[in-house]
Amino acid sequence: MHFDLIVIGSGPAGQKGAIAAAKLGRSVAIIDRQAMYGGVSLHGGTIPSKTLREAILFLFGLHQRAFYGHDYTVKEEINHEDLIMRVRMVEEREMSVIRDQLKRNHVQMFFGTAHFRNEKTVVVIGEGNEQVLTADNILIACGTHPIRHANIPFDGETVIDVDQILDLTDLPKKLIVVGAGVIGLEYASMFAAMGIGVTIIDQRTEILGFVDREIIDRLKFSLMEQHTVFRLGETLAHVEKERNNQVKVTLESGKVIRGDTFLYAVGRQTNTDTLNLEAIGLKTDKKGRISVNEDFQTNIDHIYAAGDVIGFPALAATSMEQGRLASCNMFCHPAKTSHELLPYGIYTIPEISMVGKTEQELTDAKIPYEFGTARYDELAKGQILGVKSGFVKILFDPKTLKLFGVHIIGEQAAELIHIGQAVLALGGTLQYFRDTVFNYPTLAEAYKVAAFNGLNKLQEDNICHIESDRCGDE
Amino acid sequence: MHFDLIVIGSGPAGQKGAIAAAKLGRSVAIIDRQAMYGGVSLHGGTIPSKTLREAILFLFGLHQRAFYGHDYTVKEEINHEDLIMRVRMVEEREMSVIRDQLKRNHVQMFFGTAHFRNEKTVVVIGEGNEQVLTADNILIACGTHPIRHANIPFDGETVIDVDQILDLTDLPKKLIVVGAGVIGLEYASMFAAMGIGVTIIDQRTEILGFVDREIIDRLKFSLMEQHTVFRLGETLAHVEKERNNQVKVTLESGKVIRGDTFLYAVGRQTNTDTLNLEAIGLKTDKKGRISVNEDFQTNIDHIYAAGDVIGFPALAATSMEQGRLASCNMFCHPAKTSHELLPYGIYTIPEISMVGKTEQELTDAKIPYEFGTARYDELAKGQILGVKSGFVKILFDPKTLKLFGVHIIGEQAAELIHIGQAVLALGGTLQYFRDTVFNYPTLAEAYKVAAFNGLNKLQEDNICHIESDRCGDE
Repeated sequence: MHFDLIVIGSGPAGQKGAIAAAKLGRSVAIIDRQAMYGGVSLHGGTIPSKTLREAILFLFGLHQRAFYGHDYTVKEEINHEDLIMRVRMVEEREMSVIRDQLKRNHVQMFFGTAHFRNEKTVVVIGEGNEQVLTADNILIACGTHPIRHANIPFDGETVIDVDQILDLTDLPKKLIVVGAGVIGLEYASMFAAMGIGVTIIDQRTEILGFVDREIIDRLKFSLMEQHTVFRLGETLAHVEKERNNQVKVTLESGKVIRGDTFLYAVGRQTNTDTLNLEAIGLKTDKKGRISVNEDFQTNIDHIYAAGDVIGFPALAATSMEQGRLASCNMFCHPAKTSHELLPYGIYTIPEISMVGKTEQELTDAKIPYEFGTARYDELAKGQILGVKSGFVKILFDPKTLKLFGVHIIGEQAAELIHIGQAVLALGGTLQYFRDTVFNYPTLAEAYKVAAFNGLNKLQEDNICHIESDRCGDE
Repeated sequence: MHFDLIVIGSGPAGQKGAIAAAKLGRSVAIIDRQAMYGGVSLHGGTIPSKTLREAILFLFGLHQRAFYGHDYTVKEEINHEDLIMRVRMVEEREMSVIRDQLKRNHVQMFFGTAHFRNEKTVVVIGEGNEQVLTADNILIACGTHPIRHANIPFDGETVIDVDQILDLTDLPKKLIVVGAGVIGLEYASMFAAMGIGVTIIDQRTEILGFVDREIIDRLKFSLMEQHTVFRLGETLAHVEKERNNQVKVTLESGKVIRGDTFLYAVGRQTNTDTLNLEAIGLKTDKKGRISVNEDFQTNIDHIYAAGDVIGFPALAATSMEQGRLASCNMFCHPAKTSHELLPYGIYTIPEISMVGKTEQELTDAKIPYEFGTARYDELAKGQILGVKSGFVKILFDPKTLKLFGVHIIGEQAAELIHIGQAVLALGGTLQYFRDTVFNYPTLAEAYKVAAFNGLNKLQEDNICHIESDRCGDE
């Protein structure tokens, strides 16, 4: 069978690439293992972890504690089943949404594992059958799987990687997380929110280097308030299972940490190893990542790659856009995204989101800036929702008042960032927030409060409009 | 005592007016009754009603029913105390936030009722004392109170106005609401969400005329699904209390409706009657509203008015901005807000928000438009949150792709509208949403889905970029 495009992998990048090509009138095949349709995003990754997070927020009444007391939970006894049930329901629904979307756009689905026979031929090995597909263009969006270390005794029960977390049958009393990246921190904060003691270990002394330091300090503070222990700048020496079902972790500094569950969240590597890339001369780096140019094209002209397989930022949102842009580019509709204005959403508790520059980036580039901040508890909506922590910081040019970046930690951060993103992208200034009416009560008002806070720091009088031609003599 | 500015009323308009003037270095007095500091917004109005709404959403587990079944509630028995406790806590906190803010800005607070002695003199009658203040400028932000009809037997228990709703000691089984304006619909939807049978009566056949008809149809559908009955185009003939604590309502069409509680929500009139405005020749209309020019100046040069006292839209958000602008204008820093881009937030369940033009306005003006829509249940975040209804509509110019308006019904509507508002205000087009990466999973993604939906309706190929100089021959 011949297609205009074969897509390998049905995660966010593969889906959006396939649909964009189909909408451009091309014939498209998409290949994935039946159980993995939707990719890691849907199976073990983004969707289940964010669903788990919402279930925890609700069942542990986290936003209600301001009103109903510190130990408040919605149910007396919350078990793993309460949490997982919701995850499975969402997975199923989302799976059918994806299949419907592919079908509606006449994207032909093939089930099995794919490998290259030659530059234009892909073999799909399914259950007891083998299909040979050819295409003029190929998009590799095969995704990643967790990295495992040979010296760690993974058993899928007490010593697990991040793809196994939903298979846990009991909630631990003490959790050890190795790896303070986005995924490690997201899970650490969910368990901490359930009142579980968490220890986070990372070799690096600074976590999430691309995020504003003040936001990270606030995340760390918030987690430490929930009894999370950070062991940064520490190296794992030894992990062993003990008789009482405990896991004993020894650090190179000699410290010993014990827990019921050990979660290894140290990066991911790509699924390129089974694609037979050697046969076509497509190179990958040590972690199996494929290099692409800004059009998402590999070193072979008609083969493109998108999503986690090409590396940072490896976020579902970005991967979708990469997939779409790859298809646009291969069918000759040049399309680009402004990389400067990619938002980052980190679904820790509290949630983090950012767009634009950080204070560190501006300082390193010797660009002077001012900042304006707002706390959620200054806002009527913050009081109404009972959210305690929540913080918005706007970085701006003190001369032109143009925005440099917006950094938010707190409830709805990943939604609210899009307001700042639009103003940033469309060249608005701090005055936009000053002069705009925001719905009341909303958390979005934080932009207005932060803008006033920033304007008050400047010498000029910015409470009203600056341009004051009507009152020359004042 | 002499001031640069006296502000009459401490609601949203008064507060922001006073603070803006203080920040401009002026001496400011603000007058209100001690128990009413913060205005109706804080006492019986916006803040308590929105807090009640959040308490209901949580305690009745409304967002959880997709997962835990249709009859799910967080507590077995929910009484009025569970709801009111939270309202009182938020009121207290918000009251102290307001007082702190006024103090921090050296705004002098006076407690009592105000009236004019002459154009520059205001008398404050407090508990057992009388103070005489003079000022160069005066801002009237005295707010409103509910209209009552002489033939309705108000008793504060079974027959009440909207300012008495929080004093209810029991939740009714059947509620009759007269007046399908914003406030009437907000309360009606809250009671409906608690499983209480609601009948809404209004003389008008069309409710909330300024809102997009499709959004209203969806609101009505959603309320009817919760057993709410609409009696539109019907006039109240007679309201009487019966022996069994029931209220009997007779309509002019002869229909009889019975309920445990009767809520009268037919408009508000201003608190100008006690200000002695005759003495200074300041005129008001039949409902006591003061006319102002676009600078919020009354027919007396140094007297300004802002907030509910000047009429539509009478929303806290707008009032704040009016108060600030009035002070800017009176101290000679000309300031304006784009009225076209005022957002409206209606805190019904589901929530409604809008900015820009409606389909009706565009049709009446004979402006051709296209539209793009998205449903929350198409979004991963919609599935994760378990929200069933939720709908975003973007109206745009099919030629330029510029936005005309955004209309949202569903959770977070009042927050999400600010994204569309920014794009609209800053001249962005539908392509902005197409080419922007949105955090995943978020409800804000609805903008992207709606943009693609809209672009797909056009003849041109808009999946990628339109400008395609690289591929001339395609």
